[in-house]
Amino acid sequence: MSSPLQIGLLVFPRVTQLDFTGPLQVFSAVPGAKLHLIWKRIEPVPSDSILTLTPTTTFADCPQLDVICVPGGGGTDDLVNDTEALDFLREQAEGAKYVTSVCTGSLVLGAAGLLRGYRAATHWSAMEFLRQFGATPTKTRVCVDRNRITGGGVTAGIDFALTLVSILVDRTMAEAIQLRLEYNPAPPFSSGSPETAPAEVLALVKERIAPNQVRRIEAVGRAAARVI
Amino acid sequence: MSSPLQIGLLVFPRVTQLDFTGPLQVFSAVPGAKLHLIWKRIEPVPSDSILTLTPTTTFADCPQLDVICVPGGGGTDDLVNDTEALDFLREQAEGAKYVTSVCTGSLVLGAAGLLRGYRAATHWSAMEFLRQFGATPTKTRVCVDRNRITGGGVTAGIDFALTLVSILVDRTMAEAIQLRLEYNPAPPFSSGSPETAPAEVLALVKERIAPNQVRRIEAVGRAAARVI
Repeated sequence: MSSPLQIGLLVFPRVTQLDFTGPLQVFSAVPGAKLHLIWKRIEPVPSDSILTLTPTTTFADCPQLDVICVPGGGGTDDLVNDTEALDFLREQAEGAKYVTSVCTGSLVLGAAGLLRGYRAATHWSAMEFLRQFGATPTKTRVCVDRNRITGGGVTAGIDFALTLVSILVDRTMAEAIQLRLEYNPAPPFSSGSPETAPAEVLALVKERIAPNQVRRIEAVGRAAARVI
Repeated sequence: MSSPLQIGLLVFPRVTQLDFTGPLQVFSAVPGAKLHLIWKRIEPVPSDSILTLTPTTTFADCPQLDVICVPGGGGTDDLVNDTEALDFLREQAEGAKYVTSVCTGSLVLGAAGLLRGYRAATHWSAMEFLRQFGATPTKTRVCVDRNRITGGGVTAGIDFALTLVSILVDRTMAEAIQLRLEYNPAPPFSSGSPETAPAEVLALVKERIAPNQVRRIEAVGRAAARVI
């Protein structure tokens, strides 16, 4: 592993910002780690909310990473067919120690051909799309399959990042970061997964994301046709 | 309550970004809510990590908010003695429905005189400082005392924000957002609080934050002398 540890997170238009701000907070607490926020150009990128994100390096200037991480969000529907971004991921993946994602970032890894024959996690609403990239959908908060480490939806990025730190450094470091971030979660409701959410809440959310699903079916279908 | 719902989060140098990106992700999912990132000037503000944050409005231009939220982080040691910021908070608090914080943001509310006689939460390492502002330290992820709603350390911001949405809108809305964010946490270790962390991990973290505590004792002492 290079010294310092080089950890890069992709930022892109309409990224779900918590997909990467959660892991970023964890990784930033690793002494000596060098963090990179990567996009095509260094100019503010709109996230899914009012937060704009400023990349710190470009595809062209980014050093070889030890860890490449792709967060998720609505913007992944464009990324899965963005050959410039997919080429960058493939090149980095060749030299990286760990190829990782949070939420629907795993669909982008899949579209880059990087999950064929691997188990992978993603957001609960996107599970079945993984199969189109030759991956095996896995319903866990964090899925470790050889050097592919993928997290579930959005907030799973925190569990993912702590797991990765325990692998990259050691368990004590991960526990120390967990304590600093007071990650002792106590959700006020038990609606965090389709299995535990009230039926009417699940129906409401499915209805609300239905238009996105239509777009995703088209985008993933096109991407998968190119990969497989 | 005004329509749309006006929710403002303070951003400031050396804010712990996850303190506010967690709640921001939750609040952004409330239909019709208008979000504001507030600082003295609209220019990029450095967070505690490589992420820079761009405010969307200034103290002078910010409309009356329904919810004002102060996140925490190292920068709160400056904020507790920043009369311009404290004046802004006091003015907003007069008309706001809810006056809120995450992590050491509650020390800033305290320094503005807004927690005298209230129970409040904060990061586990900062609990005792609350007393100097006339507040009663409360070891919970979320502390609701009348219209003061304060969260514990960093990741408690997610629990805090879901609780606040259930109060602002309703429980179904909070549950729907929890499901979309797949907030079904499964920390890989049980080190998220001083009570559950291994003794050597707690000792390690206490040693590492000791210099910050020295600075905080001085800053809070000065702030408290002005308030009480």
